[in-house]
Amino acid sequence: MTTGPDRDSANVSEDNAAPPKAVRTVALVATGEELVRGAIVDSNSAWLARRIRALGLELSEVRVVGDQQRDIERAVRELAERVDLLIVGGGLGPTEDDRTRHALAVAAGVALASDPEAQAQLAKWFELRGRTPSPSNARQALLPIGARALPNSRGSAPGIALGMGRAACFALPGVPSELRAMFDEQVVPWLRTRLDRAPFCERLLQVVGLPESVVGERVARWMESPDPPGVSDTVRFGVVTLCVSDRDDVAGRARIEACVAELRGALGQHLFAEGDTTLAAHVVARLLARSATVAVAESCTGGLIAAALTDVPGSSQVFHEGCISYADAAKVRALGLSPALLAAEGAVSEAVARAMASAVRTKTGSTFGVASTGVAGPTGGSAAIPVGVVHLALAGPDGVRHDRRHFPGDRDSVRQFAVIGALDLLRRAIDAS
Amino acid sequence: MTTGPDRDSANVSEDNAAPPKAVRTVALVATGEELVRGAIVDSNSAWLARRIRALGLELSEVRVVGDQQRDIERAVRELAERVDLLIVGGGLGPTEDDRTRHALAVAAGVALASDPEAQAQLAKWFELRGRTPSPSNARQALLPIGARALPNSRGSAPGIALGMGRAACFALPGVPSELRAMFDEQVVPWLRTRLDRAPFCERLLQVVGLPESVVGERVARWMESPDPPGVSDTVRFGVVTLCVSDRDDVAGRARIEACVAELRGALGQHLFAEGDTTLAAHVVARLLARSATVAVAESCTGGLIAAALTDVPGSSQVFHEGCISYADAAKVRALGLSPALLAAEGAVSEAVARAMASAVRTKTGSTFGVASTGVAGPTGGSAAIPVGVVHLALAGPDGVRHDRRHFPGDRDSVRQFAVIGALDLLRRAIDAS
Repeated sequence: MTTGPDRDSANVSEDNAAPPKAVRTVALVATGEELVRGAIVDSNSAWLARRIRALGLELSEVRVVGDQQRDIERAVRELAERVDLLIVGGGLGPTEDDRTRHALAVAAGVALASDPEAQAQLAKWFELRGRTPSPSNARQALLPIGARALPNSRGSAPGIALGMGRAACFALPGVPSELRAMFDEQVVPWLRTRLDRAPFCERLLQVVGLPESVVGERVARWMESPDPPGVSDTVRFGVVTLCVSDRDDVAGRARIEACVAELRGALGQHLFAEGDTTLAAHVVARLLARSATVAVAESCTGGLIAAALTDVPGSSQVFHEGCISYADAAKVRALGLSPALLAAEGAVSEAVARAMASAVRTKTGSTFGVASTGVAGPTGGSAAIPVGVVHLALAGPDGVRHDRRHFPGDRDSVRQFAVIGALDLLRRAIDAS
Repeated sequence: MTTGPDRDSANVSEDNAAPPKAVRTVALVATGEELVRGAIVDSNSAWLARRIRALGLELSEVRVVGDQQRDIERAVRELAERVDLLIVGGGLGPTEDDRTRHALAVAAGVALASDPEAQAQLAKWFELRGRTPSPSNARQALLPIGARALPNSRGSAPGIALGMGRAACFALPGVPSELRAMFDEQVVPWLRTRLDRAPFCERLLQVVGLPESVVGERVARWMESPDPPGVSDTVRFGVVTLCVSDRDDVAGRARIEACVAELRGALGQHLFAEGDTTLAAHVVARLLARSATVAVAESCTGGLIAAALTDVPGSSQVFHEGCISYADAAKVRALGLSPALLAAEGAVSEAVARAMASAVRTKTGSTFGVASTGVAGPTGGSAAIPVGVVHLALAGPDGVRHDRRHFPGDRDSVRQFAVIGALDLLRRAIDAS
């Protein structure tokens, strides 16, 4: 193996005698025209972010640039001065627009040269597959002088490791399966000896039935505190997920435990689950535990409540049947509602929602029946029943419950909120009965 | 409206007398702990990237940072010196960890003050919904002095426009529906008068029923050519979308037209639509045009086919009713299938799929009946019927069609592929009849 000053400075070589420098901060550069044109979503960075956090490291920044060499070069040069570890994804392919190796060489102030180790990896990869490398594949053996070639167990392009500024820099291929394998096989073992703090651990609290602003007020004391544990929230169609995180050591775990205990008190019955789960999965688990079943009669949600329930593996034990009674005639034919009731109350009404929930419960012999009827928009609203109004009903052994809700946003948003509202109504009925 | 030096310098005010400076380069800052923790994928940036490109602008960089004020501030300050337009997404919520407004104020060197226009927008939003703003919502009216509040048609948080360095800076809420609406309603009209080059125009071709690699081979000649128009592809659960793009001038439009004509020939009947549409929207439009209706009988898809159809505004004209017959007993009770057929053939079989499609068509009096039955996984597979096998059937005036498919991936992937497979079966039946 060759050595060079840049490489030693950041300990990317395995055979360096000095004790390795601790790695604490990380940045990512994702490169590719398809990213800046929006043709694909940057899923590599989300995957790397999760891995990096689980290792106890702090991801300070992700930069997404196109395939212009000068843009990659500038991002690499700037970030190499700020963080301990820099991961570059993409731009290692065989074509003319793959410029990561050139950008790294310019940023490190060295030339490119064909690397014997990279040549051997490439030759082996093509030989194993009985394929002949094209002339352009020879480009993939070009490395900045002083860099180390990283084996690619899933594809042809070798990765690149080199020191740059204060950072160790690893360039990985952009193909997701190759990037992930190379990170786990090449970067993680290198990192293991360079972690000087306990990794992070986190606890998730799932909250429903409260607006984000109200959740925020109830947990403000913890969110605003600069001291650990950290508390942050994300919201998606009526479910607020709180993340309590701290170091995975004795003190950190104790702080998390104390914080979670207080949050439980502040959130009461709106805290429906702890951990990485969904409201649908929680409801299915609760039904399973009680050997209960649920059927749905959906109008405005058009199958989404059933889809959410059946998305949960094992849901066939608790969900047997559903009816999408979208038209008034379907509410009469399939559920047996009275045309007079529909005429008198209108399809979007408390009475019709209650009748739908009761009918589907009785007809299917389920423990619970859930129903939705509303105006998802964009048309169909009126002064009395504007777009976003949804009547939800739940029939169970203890009678029928009803919620009138007014959800914000477009058609998709109203429907997604209605699913969460319906599942929450079901959850409360299970807990109460 | 108040005015300030920062704001005037970049023409974010509409009433500026000087001719507006042309905008050519754009950068994005996406903020949120959930992004750097990898809890969610940054779909906002991909959406904005497509819009920006369609306007003929060059997106030079996307930076993803957490919710630390100093990180947002540094990204904003650096990028405001490099580009003409800077879009910041996220961090405008009501909680303590929403720091975008503070970061903008520090980066612009001004203080924060409660803005009367933002106050009025917030008051109106809560009034329309009959809700009382919580005290923390008052934070959302804080703007850097000299900035302009941008109306939010989908949520409570006003956006922020202010001049910064050489750039005009727009901060938009992170909730995707709010970000998208505010970009289209507030940023695009501002931009229209500041474009000095022909925007890009693009034509989308929607393809179904061919693997991405086969589509890639059929269009390789255009995808590999360095000359315009550019052709790129994205794939999602069985639908491949080809994007043909070029400058929106006479020569560019002619090149696009010639390319699209050749692609039509190469793709044949697999090209189901042109433009930004979905297979469900296309099928609903085709049914509407023929005054035909469709009903569904879903087993493994559990409501997703109905949800896809009813996601299309206006679908109530063509979709009246559906049955989610998840359990065998439901296939007997609701659809009238014979228990002997289920016992002899098994629920996941061609015969049962055909019987479900016919039954739901007859019972609901619809023109077409669509059915699904399969093994979505992760359990329930066998050597004879492995996970991923789905039988799809379509009953129509001309008889019953059937497809046996074997879809890849996890439970969600199998179900999503099955929806596309079912809708494609329906599409082909409509076109043939």
